[in-house]
Amino acid sequence: MTFDYFFKPKAIAVIGASNDPLKLGYEVFKNLKGYQDGKVYPVNVKDEIVQGVKAYRNVKDIPDDVELAVIVVPKKFVKQTIIDCGEKGVKGIVLITAGFGETGEEGKKEECELVEIAHRYGMRIVGPNCVGIMNTHNGMNATFVTNAKKGDIAFISQSGALGAGIIYKTIKEGIGFSKFVSIGNMADIDFAEFMEYLANDPESKAIALYIEGLRDGRKFMEVAKRVTKKKPVIVLKAGKSESGARAASSHTGSLAGSYKIYEAAFKQSGIIVAETIDDMLSMARAFTQPLPKGKRVAIMTNAGGPGVLTADEIDKRGLKLTNLEEKTIEELRSFLPPMAAVKNPVDMIASARGEDYYRTAKALLEDPNVDMLIAICVVPTFAGMTPTEHVEGVVRAVKEVNNGKPVLGLFMAGYISEPAKEVLEKAGIPSYERPEDVASAACALVEFAKDVGILKEEK
Amino acid sequence: MTFDYFFKPKAIAVIGASNDPLKLGYEVFKNLKGYQDGKVYPVNVKDEIVQGVKAYRNVKDIPDDVELAVIVVPKKFVKQTIIDCGEKGVKGIVLITAGFGETGEEGKKEECELVEIAHRYGMRIVGPNCVGIMNTHNGMNATFVTNAKKGDIAFISQSGALGAGIIYKTIKEGIGFSKFVSIGNMADIDFAEFMEYLANDPESKAIALYIEGLRDGRKFMEVAKRVTKKKPVIVLKAGKSESGARAASSHTGSLAGSYKIYEAAFKQSGIIVAETIDDMLSMARAFTQPLPKGKRVAIMTNAGGPGVLTADEIDKRGLKLTNLEEKTIEELRSFLPPMAAVKNPVDMIASARGEDYYRTAKALLEDPNVDMLIAICVVPTFAGMTPTEHVEGVVRAVKEVNNGKPVLGLFMAGYISEPAKEVLEKAGIPSYERPEDVASAACALVEFAKDVGILKEEK
Repeated sequence: MTFDYFFKPKAIAVIGASNDPLKLGYEVFKNLKGYQDGKVYPVNVKDEIVQGVKAYRNVKDIPDDVELAVIVVPKKFVKQTIIDCGEKGVKGIVLITAGFGETGEEGKKEECELVEIAHRYGMRIVGPNCVGIMNTHNGMNATFVTNAKKGDIAFISQSGALGAGIIYKTIKEGIGFSKFVSIGNMADIDFAEFMEYLANDPESKAIALYIEGLRDGRKFMEVAKRVTKKKPVIVLKAGKSESGARAASSHTGSLAGSYKIYEAAFKQSGIIVAETIDDMLSMARAFTQPLPKGKRVAIMTNAGGPGVLTADEIDKRGLKLTNLEEKTIEELRSFLPPMAAVKNPVDMIASARGEDYYRTAKALLEDPNVDMLIAICVVPTFAGMTPTEHVEGVVRAVKEVNNGKPVLGLFMAGYISEPAKEVLEKAGIPSYERPEDVASAACALVEFAKDVGILKEEK
Repeated sequence: MTFDYFFKPKAIAVIGASNDPLKLGYEVFKNLKGYQDGKVYPVNVKDEIVQGVKAYRNVKDIPDDVELAVIVVPKKFVKQTIIDCGEKGVKGIVLITAGFGETGEEGKKEECELVEIAHRYGMRIVGPNCVGIMNTHNGMNATFVTNAKKGDIAFISQSGALGAGIIYKTIKEGIGFSKFVSIGNMADIDFAEFMEYLANDPESKAIALYIEGLRDGRKFMEVAKRVTKKKPVIVLKAGKSESGARAASSHTGSLAGSYKIYEAAFKQSGIIVAETIDDMLSMARAFTQPLPKGKRVAIMTNAGGPGVLTADEIDKRGLKLTNLEEKTIEELRSFLPPMAAVKNPVDMIASARGEDYYRTAKALLEDPNVDMLIAICVVPTFAGMTPTEHVEGVVRAVKEVNNGKPVLGLFMAGYISEPAKEVLEKAGIPSYERPEDVASAACALVEFAKDVGILKEEK
């Protein structure tokens, strides 16, 4: 099974593309102008030109192999549009139009009929009632929201608005996605099928799912079991509480079910369970790093407080703050100032500069008791210092030691950390802003290392 | 007891003020140039002019009533400087210089001697080993970090670097403080005394404390018991885990103690316990709102997912998702589209505009089953809409109904939410970006309403 026609189609038709900036079909066509792997054609029953591009009255009139059709026409025209797509030989449909399964039984029937028609022509449908899909690696934004930042996380959201909100949020925070799918009512394609496709997508290092309810839980878990042998899958499930579950069920029309049953099944399937949106994103971002061989964490910091808070969060998640080897302690003692704490967390104190970060990171990575390193930099308190030199020290140590231990960064100083975060991210090391986020990231690496058998500890 | 001489001094001397941008004394004097309630004098043993201002060789030479001295001289000059301050008639000292109690027993003795000298002259000391203090309401920034945003939260941090980091972070996030104190080694003034002062500070609506360890736990709890009858106190305690506690104790030199004992004592004293930095800030920001008479929450949203996630977080904290009155449901049904969910959470769906927000907020606030309202706006999915009109609807409803029920906002769309957040904040309604934060805020309001006897439920 390949969904390449969804993410790398030869040509795309936007059916309902519009010149009216107040219509979704305007945004979708505008966004798709950035597509790099093929042509994009507007289809509009009235206008001959849409946003400066020659438009077609019907998808069948397009003189090209249209693999993907994005449909934003009013509900009453959807059925005929899908038939037209079938006759044209379209392969994938992104059905943005709403008013189907989410409205009740009648809408569900209509939805089913659309899927039957599509299948008759060998077509597959994403949606309806969705925001669309994106592939940031070829500029394909088949949604009516702004471009997500390019990155390594594939993200599928059952709530379109929440998915869109997360895109805006992550742009602000510098977090990137490889693919984005607003999965809508899942009338045809569900989480399981996309998960299977993304498992083999080299542009996606982790798969993050926001789930409100599943139609076919058994199928989902079966696929997840296979996928999590290859790639980490992180799930945020809404409807944990009874009142939340009731709300979720009325929202998506799918059965929310007891969260405890879901959680147990997720864990059995090798899925990493997230508690919040930031938790999910923090975990998914960790997988640019190699997997740890154990769960013993070393923390280095230039301020005591953040080291303590991070130690607390590490402990809370069942990871271990390691005991450093005597040799490492002696080495640290040899160059750090007397007031520094050379136990774990290593508090290099506020005077620490790039060279201290380099030597400390090196000593910790070389310690056989260390499986993973968290490098913290709060605001450098000496005038004239920027956290950039600190980070460069860490990056140099990682390159030199090069022994496959994961490293995560924590920068707790808002906007003045940003240049340093960029240095770290460029070196492939994810950096976080909150102790709980970096601890969740470390935990996710450990969980996945267990899933794939790299870490052989008791589960 | 008044610490007005710390926060509104007649005149300030910066002893160790410098022309060298690489010295802390440069930043401190530069920052204090914005002070609006009195003059600021640089003291420098060599330079006659510091940053364009006439400098004095000794604090005693200043021809003015110096109430506050900020000391940033090297350690070996500190003792004599304090004696000079005493002879000058200074009242308060902010001792930024480090190298005392945090270095071990010898340093602790030196610290004690300094305090004895100060007390002999009737002076009080903040620090040593601190970042300084701020009063955003008169532009007094007696620290070497940037100006915090002006706001209603008094924040005392036992970690200087973390405190500084939080200032940079909150500037990025638009969160403001009334006072900031980096309390350092607490050789003289401790949390308890500042808490007592801040209880009567009309510029501070809530007191947030970041604590690593207490010297005199009994005194702290006694004072807290009194203060929390008047003003909410929110504590983030580092060293929850065993490894974290060990690290905290080596960092501050104060006994960290078992977290469970701390937690129980905090709660007995009416203190609201925060889990993370964001939790602490979210809670402290809630207190621009009136206190709820009960713990029944209504949620309104333009997207299902965020409503569900918020319901989950509300439930997790022991608050109740209320059952709306039949009358309210009928009213909502009368103007919301058929696809909207008129149960709690009320999902007005993506088409909701300002008028829907207004009418829904009004109906919910008027419902006797509702004690508190959370208004959510994810990204408005219809082209041409901005979340500003949504928020304006909420603000209008709150003004009209005017029945003293707290309202909190949740905007989950990163940068495009910012104009809307500003509208809400201007109306005094705090707005959050994450379901867990708004739920913590709601929870803090309920906790404090219990503390002061407004909410008479079982504790």
